[in-house]
Amino acid sequence: MLDAVANGRDIDALMLDIGARATAAARPLAIASTEQKNKALNAMADAIVAARDTILAANADDLREVEGSGLQASFIDRLTLTDQRILDMADGIRAIAAFKDPVGEVIAAWDRPNGLKIERIRTPLGVIGVIYESRPNVTADAGALCLKAGNAVVLRGGSDSRRSSAAIHACLVEGLRVADLPEDAIQIVPVADRAAVGAMLTGLGGSIDVIVPRGGKNLVARVQSEARVPVFAHLEGLCHIYVDASADLDMAKEIVVNAKMRRTGVCGAAETLLVDRTAAQTHLKPLVEALRAAGCEVRASEDVRRLVSGLNPATEDDWSTEYLDAIISVRLVDGISGAIAHIGTYSSSHTEAVVAEDPAVVERFFSEVDSAILLHNASTQFADGGEFGMGGEIGIATGKMHARGPVGVEQLTSFKYRVHGTGQTRP
Amino acid sequence: MLDAVANGRDIDALMLDIGARATAAARPLAIASTEQKNKALNAMADAIVAARDTILAANADDLREVEGSGLQASFIDRLTLTDQRILDMADGIRAIAAFKDPVGEVIAAWDRPNGLKIERIRTPLGVIGVIYESRPNVTADAGALCLKAGNAVVLRGGSDSRRSSAAIHACLVEGLRVADLPEDAIQIVPVADRAAVGAMLTGLGGSIDVIVPRGGKNLVARVQSEARVPVFAHLEGLCHIYVDASADLDMAKEIVVNAKMRRTGVCGAAETLLVDRTAAQTHLKPLVEALRAAGCEVRASEDVRRLVSGLNPATEDDWSTEYLDAIISVRLVDGISGAIAHIGTYSSSHTEAVVAEDPAVVERFFSEVDSAILLHNASTQFADGGEFGMGGEIGIATGKMHARGPVGVEQLTSFKYRVHGTGQTRP
Repeated sequence: MLDAVANGRDIDALMLDIGARATAAARPLAIASTEQKNKALNAMADAIVAARDTILAANADDLREVEGSGLQASFIDRLTLTDQRILDMADGIRAIAAFKDPVGEVIAAWDRPNGLKIERIRTPLGVIGVIYESRPNVTADAGALCLKAGNAVVLRGGSDSRRSSAAIHACLVEGLRVADLPEDAIQIVPVADRAAVGAMLTGLGGSIDVIVPRGGKNLVARVQSEARVPVFAHLEGLCHIYVDASADLDMAKEIVVNAKMRRTGVCGAAETLLVDRTAAQTHLKPLVEALRAAGCEVRASEDVRRLVSGLNPATEDDWSTEYLDAIISVRLVDGISGAIAHIGTYSSSHTEAVVAEDPAVVERFFSEVDSAILLHNASTQFADGGEFGMGGEIGIATGKMHARGPVGVEQLTSFKYRVHGTGQTRP
Repeated sequence: MLDAVANGRDIDALMLDIGARATAAARPLAIASTEQKNKALNAMADAIVAARDTILAANADDLREVEGSGLQASFIDRLTLTDQRILDMADGIRAIAAFKDPVGEVIAAWDRPNGLKIERIRTPLGVIGVIYESRPNVTADAGALCLKAGNAVVLRGGSDSRRSSAAIHACLVEGLRVADLPEDAIQIVPVADRAAVGAMLTGLGGSIDVIVPRGGKNLVARVQSEARVPVFAHLEGLCHIYVDASADLDMAKEIVVNAKMRRTGVCGAAETLLVDRTAAQTHLKPLVEALRAAGCEVRASEDVRRLVSGLNPATEDDWSTEYLDAIISVRLVDGISGAIAHIGTYSSSHTEAVVAEDPAVVERFFSEVDSAILLHNASTQFADGGEFGMGGEIGIATGKMHARGPVGVEQLTSFKYRVHGTGQTRP
């Protein structure tokens, strides 16, 4: 794997071949039975557990290569596999096997006055392209989710984790083989050249139906700007929490601290706290103090700083910054209208929460804020396909086409119409 | 309207302004009540009926301009409005008003073990761009469908019908005004320059969420290849009918003749008839004779021509030709497997029909053919949003993303998640 490739034309030919093989594999996969797909998934999990030592050795080689290269600790952490992480990976695949098969599900059915019986049926999308960075477990997650939904997948992981990903991929192929499914159903791009990503973004000659980028902002931005096929992704998770004057203060404190501090590096972490101006005397200071007590830096608007001492000022830039760190921006707003206006201006349309007891406030928030996920009296950190009960996710999308919010197996499907007649012709 | 525009930069600025105004209008539209939208739609229908003479006069001016320009009769027919066609247009808008409002519908709802109540709710998509040719009634259809789904729309009709479309558009704006909805909710591009289409295809600075082309193959091909935003469209409707040996022959004859000859110029017209080889002696000749008796030219494979005399030969090109005329290609295939293979090779993934009494044959056809619409014992000409009971359609899509098959009001929506909690934080 990862042979030196002489030039761009060779890469193009290689990538087109991968695309053609994915398309060919997608057909039998689309009509594979649930049992066959689950047999493959469980065999993949078994193969990963059995190959633990091989995977760990490959991972050690990957880690050795980046050693001393000055990469961030968080990068090294994402690249690192342990025995436990490998077992978790296998469990994740088994959970996907246990999840219901979306393919063939009747989404809607109705009869027409002329007797035609119309059904809308879920079908696979076709071929998914997944482009990711150093996390080798994405290989297993993405491969398993795409297979469950009856799709072929072309995986292109970061070069730093290429040995780990290849070792995991071998286990996935083993599972496909056990279940007599085409081995090309899950392919991994064997070249590190960035031209391979470019080829995927143009669709591999019409083979790729959708691209899912998994990684940092630079990767997602490149994919979103260069892709000539649909993309399921979000660039940022600039999530807001609005605490209304009707909020239960204790609940608001718990939710705000959890939304910001449970894990600061995830896309569902809150980045801006909006507090109802009429609750400035009652709610503001306790919320800010709770955040500071949890170790969070608070950057605040002038009116907030007049009421709570010792806070750093928030500049205009802060309202549009996804910190992904223990920092939050805080602002007073004129009730629910002010919150909706602020979110409308600065949100990345990912996830927003309202803490309030007044149902009219909740209704306006749910109706007028146009983000993928809106939560009432719950933490923004629930923005996750697993937490939504979707049996895992391949990412969260902020676009409005096809998939929005957590992208699970159901979002990796399309549909077709089946119409039963008894000889009807159209007048 | 349609002022001369000095240069491309002016058009760009004009189009960006149209996009910005559409985006601004989309917000109040997204939260407009069903009553308010229906009030606007009914007022539009009233205004169109009241302005009949004005619309007919504008249409006469459009027709005068193309007179003697050697355009096809079918083109002139599509451009021509009559009193009846105007009344039909108004009725079409009233039917859309009477159809259920998709916005706010709870598509799915479930509870999580931690008590979170999750709902998936339909929302408008945002801003739709519609690019069409000479049919002025598309102005009314598209404007009304987009409004019903809570979307703003930017209409760009053909320059030959610009006066008719402008007169109709004035009635739509009148309806918006009556219902206190933003007039920018339905805009029509006032310049004939093709650069305006180019600007729409790049999304008007991020304003347009999806483009719907309505017109011939050249228009759709240009839109599909140049658009940098999602497109709902089909390039061709190369529809097949497979007649199985288990088919009721009388039913098959009626369906085949209707599918081909009811209207030969529509996208749901059948272009290829596949007959089960084991029914060559029983079904083939009666089917071919019925087609010829209805005035259809039959182009046939060699084995068909040996069994039925006087047929023109079908070349390889015929299997991939959408005639849109009284011509059909006919081939014998090896049962359902042969039919599935032929359709897999030549279909445009639009609509296919099977005529059969054997449920196993129907099941394989429905399972293994991957086209937007599959019909059993019914004519392909039912491929239509109105016939599907969708309250009208803006077109039929063959892509697999978001919308597939007839694109009605429901397909012009997106969704978001609303999550109700009682103070849940994520462990």
